[in-house]
Amino acid sequence: MTSPTEQFKVPSGFRLGSTTCGIKQSGTPDLALIHAPEGAAAAAVFTKNLLCAAPVIVGREHLAVSSGRVHAVIVNAGNANCATGDSGIAAAKKSCEAVAAALGVEPTQVIPSSTGVIGVPLPLEKLAGGIRPAIETAGDCPNCAERFARAIMTTDTRPKLASASIDVQGRTATVLGISKGAGMIHPQMATMLAYVITDVQATPEQLSRILGPVADRTFNRISIDGDTSTNDTLMLLASGKSDVSLESRAAQMKFGKAVEAICASLAEQMVRDGEGVKHLVKLQIQGARSEKEAEQIAGTIATSALVKTAWAGADPNWGRILAAIGRSGVGLDINKVDIDFGTLPICRQGRPVPFEEAQAHAYLAQPEFDISIRLNRGSRQITYLTCDLTADYVKINADYRT
Amino acid sequence: MTSPTEQFKVPSGFRLGSTTCGIKQSGTPDLALIHAPEGAAAAAVFTKNLLCAAPVIVGREHLAVSSGRVHAVIVNAGNANCATGDSGIAAAKKSCEAVAAALGVEPTQVIPSSTGVIGVPLPLEKLAGGIRPAIETAGDCPNCAERFARAIMTTDTRPKLASASIDVQGRTATVLGISKGAGMIHPQMATMLAYVITDVQATPEQLSRILGPVADRTFNRISIDGDTSTNDTLMLLASGKSDVSLESRAAQMKFGKAVEAICASLAEQMVRDGEGVKHLVKLQIQGARSEKEAEQIAGTIATSALVKTAWAGADPNWGRILAAIGRSGVGLDINKVDIDFGTLPICRQGRPVPFEEAQAHAYLAQPEFDISIRLNRGSRQITYLTCDLTADYVKINADYRT
Repeated sequence: MTSPTEQFKVPSGFRLGSTTCGIKQSGTPDLALIHAPEGAAAAAVFTKNLLCAAPVIVGREHLAVSSGRVHAVIVNAGNANCATGDSGIAAAKKSCEAVAAALGVEPTQVIPSSTGVIGVPLPLEKLAGGIRPAIETAGDCPNCAERFARAIMTTDTRPKLASASIDVQGRTATVLGISKGAGMIHPQMATMLAYVITDVQATPEQLSRILGPVADRTFNRISIDGDTSTNDTLMLLASGKSDVSLESRAAQMKFGKAVEAICASLAEQMVRDGEGVKHLVKLQIQGARSEKEAEQIAGTIATSALVKTAWAGADPNWGRILAAIGRSGVGLDINKVDIDFGTLPICRQGRPVPFEEAQAHAYLAQPEFDISIRLNRGSRQITYLTCDLTADYVKINADYRT
Repeated sequence: MTSPTEQFKVPSGFRLGSTTCGIKQSGTPDLALIHAPEGAAAAAVFTKNLLCAAPVIVGREHLAVSSGRVHAVIVNAGNANCATGDSGIAAAKKSCEAVAAALGVEPTQVIPSSTGVIGVPLPLEKLAGGIRPAIETAGDCPNCAERFARAIMTTDTRPKLASASIDVQGRTATVLGISKGAGMIHPQMATMLAYVITDVQATPEQLSRILGPVADRTFNRISIDGDTSTNDTLMLLASGKSDVSLESRAAQMKFGKAVEAICASLAEQMVRDGEGVKHLVKLQIQGARSEKEAEQIAGTIATSALVKTAWAGADPNWGRILAAIGRSGVGLDINKVDIDFGTLPICRQGRPVPFEEAQAHAYLAQPEFDISIRLNRGSRQITYLTCDLTADYVKINADYRT
């Protein structure tokens, strides 16, 4: 898999466009387009928040009406088009109609996405004015992918991309993932917006079967601040323009692994770029009875203000971690819990073991570290990505609007 | 009810003592004693965290063995005696034995309480050295109550007291409440330590019947940072030294109301003194189908990092509140939700109403404000107290130990 610093190949059958239409006050690019001239099979996972944005509602409807065959995805940043009522729904539909008219396809073959501030009417005229430039700039050059990634950013400081190629019986297919999101990030469908495009041959049903479990193991195992976005969207689009089909079980496995690796990379990039984040924390929950209980414990630790602020100070205050485990709702025996910071034993059977405070502090002072928690009650394990809670996070979010 | 600035009458039958035994590194008072020379009926509510501190385990046992008849409560600050294993249990018991020996009572008639850092062995010798001075300084002077309140503080910046007197058929009884807690505060039994003492005549069972519901309506409806302490303890002690008994339903009602008013006052004082708190927020949840669902929604709002940081910036970002409601797990219709900031309408039926941004900002810039949320699906309502999340909270908690 290629890393974020490399250039990214756009899979055959897709063109990525982006432009500045004036929705963001910063004057930076804020409109992006995925165009599949001959169409693509599509599957999506959306937010589970009851307050879901107009583009999520319209996107679900369009995917159903078009039976998962789409020609374009139009994405704006700077405005979430959420809590905007019937006029918000109408605006999302009109943006699809405008794209459809320009491309000569059906409006239901266009999926809308929005990200940004909640409760402000979508400036439809600005968006409409950007559609033609977005189409005209669309292409399959490596820079097109990075420009697309930048145009969907809000409080992100870096574009987020990952790609992979898979080889099935001498034939090659490409998978490219692009995402954004730095705040309001927590499971129940996590990332705000993520698109994975590929040139494999696949049906919407095949894509859907792959996407759900992948989302659960990647984007649904990260937390920056515990808030679930209203606009969370993960889409998987397949143009079928490569020679690789998903007929064989082996091809399905290879493709599924590539999609999962890309989603895992994007998820990690999002946490790394989380608002105010100084430390990326990998929680290794082991010895659980189920992945669900491991997620419940990891989620409680990852949303504990006391734990996250201790991490901000590289403070080896493991008691806060144990207290979070104790209130997670999992009925475990706290006297069986072991905790390690990296390879440093910190807690055994719920009680502290002697450790060098300075050594533990130095370990936690690193920009990235592992915390292993063994529940010693089963054989399931997960990795969950999270981060610290810093004064910078507070500053970013106290000053977002006013 | 008297306010925190006034002097506080100690109910008959109790003596309050305090001293500096050297557990706190700051060298400030850190040991406090409630002494009921002729005994008191007692009831208690403890933390629901599975990681519960040794004094909670021992306190539960002593209350059971003594059938709710106690002679003393010994409280230390600076060390939680939590995650300290069997030696922690032994230390808590030994502290009770030392108090019992000095007072000539049974060890099981003494209840231990601790608050402070987790996972560090309780310095028993220091504590034991303070028992005699605590007994000798104990008295019923008004200053005794405030000194007791100061001796149990950790990151609190102010002592927290409230008192009331009740009048039943011309007879008067006194109720006095003292608490501490400024971080790790969230329902499931909320405050870290709170003691309500009174001279009414009551059985442990009568006290218990009153205390549970009062805790649910007061301490369990506040949240500072969403973390549940390992040491949370609320005790109600009655010496029976007044002429007021709880035989009549009217007397029970009056006494219950006085205890609730005191607990509500202490709970509010705790949120006001929350770590880094700049704004006290009263969430009024109305039109709910049950108090439980209202609490679930209030709890989600009160623990949202995005909502709390917006409050820190006096940012009228109501969309974050609506998004928190949407992910609360209550299956409501988000299009029926109304939100007001004080008397200023902000959101009607899930959508924004035009409001003056500057006016809303000025309202939220106040040190205390109300947010009313009408769910419009039932007739139950609650008030829930919470606060903002500031950069100061992060600083306090990032630097707590190291």
